Amino acid sequence: MIKVGILGATGAVGRQMLECIEERNIDAEVHLFASERSAGKTLKYKGNDIVIKTVTKENLAGLDYVLGAVSNALSKEYRPLIKEAGAVYIDNSSAFRLEDDVPLVVPEINGEDALKHNGIIANPNCSTIITMMALAPIAKISPIKTIQASTYQAVSGAGVGGLRELNEQVSAIVKNEPVSHSVFPAQIAFNCIAEIGSYLDNGYTTEEMKMQNEGRKILHLPDLKVTCTCVRVPVYRSHSISASFVTEEHVSVEQAEAAIAAFEGDVLVKDHVPQPLETSNQDLVYVGRVRRDLTDDNGLALWCCGDQIRKGAASNAVSIMEYLQKH
Amino acid sequence: MIKVGILGATGAVGRQMLECIEERNIDAEVHLFASERSAGKTLKYKGNDIVIKTVTKENLAGLDYVLGAVSNALSKEYRPLIKEAGAVYIDNSSAFRLEDDVPLVVPEINGEDALKHNGIIANPNCSTIITMMALAPIAKISPIKTIQASTYQAVSGAGVGGLRELNEQVSAIVKNEPVSHSVFPAQIAFNCIAEIGSYLDNGYTTEEMKMQNEGRKILHLPDLKVTCTCVRVPVYRSHSISASFVTEEHVSVEQAEAAIAAFEGDVLVKDHVPQPLETSNQDLVYVGRVRRDLTDDNGLALWCCGDQIRKGAASNAVSIMEYLQKH
Repeated sequence: MIKVGILGATGAVGRQMLECIEERNIDAEVHLFASERSAGKTLKYKGNDIVIKTVTKENLAGLDYVLGAVSNALSKEYRPLIKEAGAVYIDNSSAFRLEDDVPLVVPEINGEDALKHNGIIANPNCSTIITMMALAPIAKISPIKTIQASTYQAVSGAGVGGLRELNEQVSAIVKNEPVSHSVFPAQIAFNCIAEIGSYLDNGYTTEEMKMQNEGRKILHLPDLKVTCTCVRVPVYRSHSISASFVTEEHVSVEQAEAAIAAFEGDVLVKDHVPQPLETSNQDLVYVGRVRRDLTDDNGLALWCCGDQIRKGAASNAVSIMEYLQKH
Repeated sequence: MIKVGILGATGAVGRQMLECIEERNIDAEVHLFASERSAGKTLKYKGNDIVIKTVTKENLAGLDYVLGAVSNALSKEYRPLIKEAGAVYIDNSSAFRLEDDVPLVVPEINGEDALKHNGIIANPNCSTIITMMALAPIAKISPIKTIQASTYQAVSGAGVGGLRELNEQVSAIVKNEPVSHSVFPAQIAFNCIAEIGSYLDNGYTTEEMKMQNEGRKILHLPDLKVTCTCVRVPVYRSHSISASFVTEEHVSVEQAEAAIAAFEGDVLVKDHVPQPLETSNQDLVYVGRVRRDLTDDNGLALWCCGDQIRKGAASNAVSIMEYLQKH
């Protein structure tokens, strides 16, 4: 039996990590961590109440793995404590993703990178994971040179607060009551907001640049160029991505579809268009609308959807832990 | 005073045409047309009840302009009657948009094309109008070679029925009742559906190919190549488009922004991100997020929003009529 700690256990991703461990029937003793505010409360795991603790050196002692679902600031604070405790840290924050000696891993794509870890492995950005799951099988046929991506991101990307805000806004609108917002920069109900993360000097947001910077590392393509526009839409928990991309050699639609269909974790959808609603609450990435890009002879276009809390965060982190156990 | 007929006066676009004529205070005698089912009913115009008629040779007699907001099939049926009546037909359907002797017009972009009409002028597709309004000022600096567009299209694009379907689904979900759909191929509330129009052999939909085919004609760029993905989102009446594009010569972000700001009908938004909610119920196209495309040295990217029923349809048609009157 392994001993697994979950940091941020009361958040949307933390709760999902706990659920993934239970549903995959991993032989694990689970320890839950959260802020002072939640310490002492309990969460159910395999029928038992697990008491939530605060993150201290003592409370981390003896753990084999720590799954992190906390902010960058807290992740930086906890990293040395986890190292000292001797646990492997699988971190969902973006704090260490681009550090040279920190593997950035989607197990189906570059699981072997996880084996070179130095105590910490980073879980990639949610939209990046889902997009790379769709593109990786094609990149294995011929390297991808450029990607054009526009995202349709669920409110769950902003955690429990994002889910609550959409819910509350919809309730208010139905009752003809005034709508307020605090999590998102404007009303998200019946709206689209092309602003996720904070702005960089080049006009892109931090979230948008993750697709290029993390994509390069996951696909082992250091020269990959990505133009990304990240957009929040009024969807609860699955992200969708419209992507076109250019490969070095010509890849046919048939080759691309066959590669996607054969790729572990992907579902090629041909009889209808993949939708965020149908991909919610499960771990697979649905890929459809594979067709030639009309602007470049070596270009292809596709549409993909995946659950943001699961494959975009929690279940990918749990899969990294399982990969380490198996290899 | 001009005599103006509106075909499909009871639909979302037809009603908006009537509203536009009234709010612009055009000196017009208005005649309303719809199906047998609506004939005899009335709509308000400048405080008076206007009785709805069916489309017959007699009822069309004496009209100067006919604004069409009906299906392709009905538009084809009515065209010879309108020609016989001697009226200029401004048609919102896609039936004649690509015919050689039918101008396809966005007045701010290619208004002069309207003057060469042979009795009929076509109003472009809604997403195409809004995207071209954002790109035209840049195309005037240097011709655009390629466009990558992903749309975020409102339910109003499917008419009154689309608006009703989203409303009914949201009401049902809030009350925990079962959700049904008939207008869209799946539930649109809290979902995204990357399927608008019908599929062509190349894997694109009819709606997606309009961006290339109509864009070429509006911008006078017969070699323009466009990869478009059209996506329905749970937004009521404004379309948004994430577009990146490559110009023949290098255009700086500053040049592009200045051109957009100076272009009639466009608003350059710098202090926040344009949103479909704020662009609803008005005629301007809001453009923001102008930045370099990261995959091509001559590429730029932007985000734009505009009201689908107004600038995307009704008010563009009314503007074509006004352009003809003034020139």
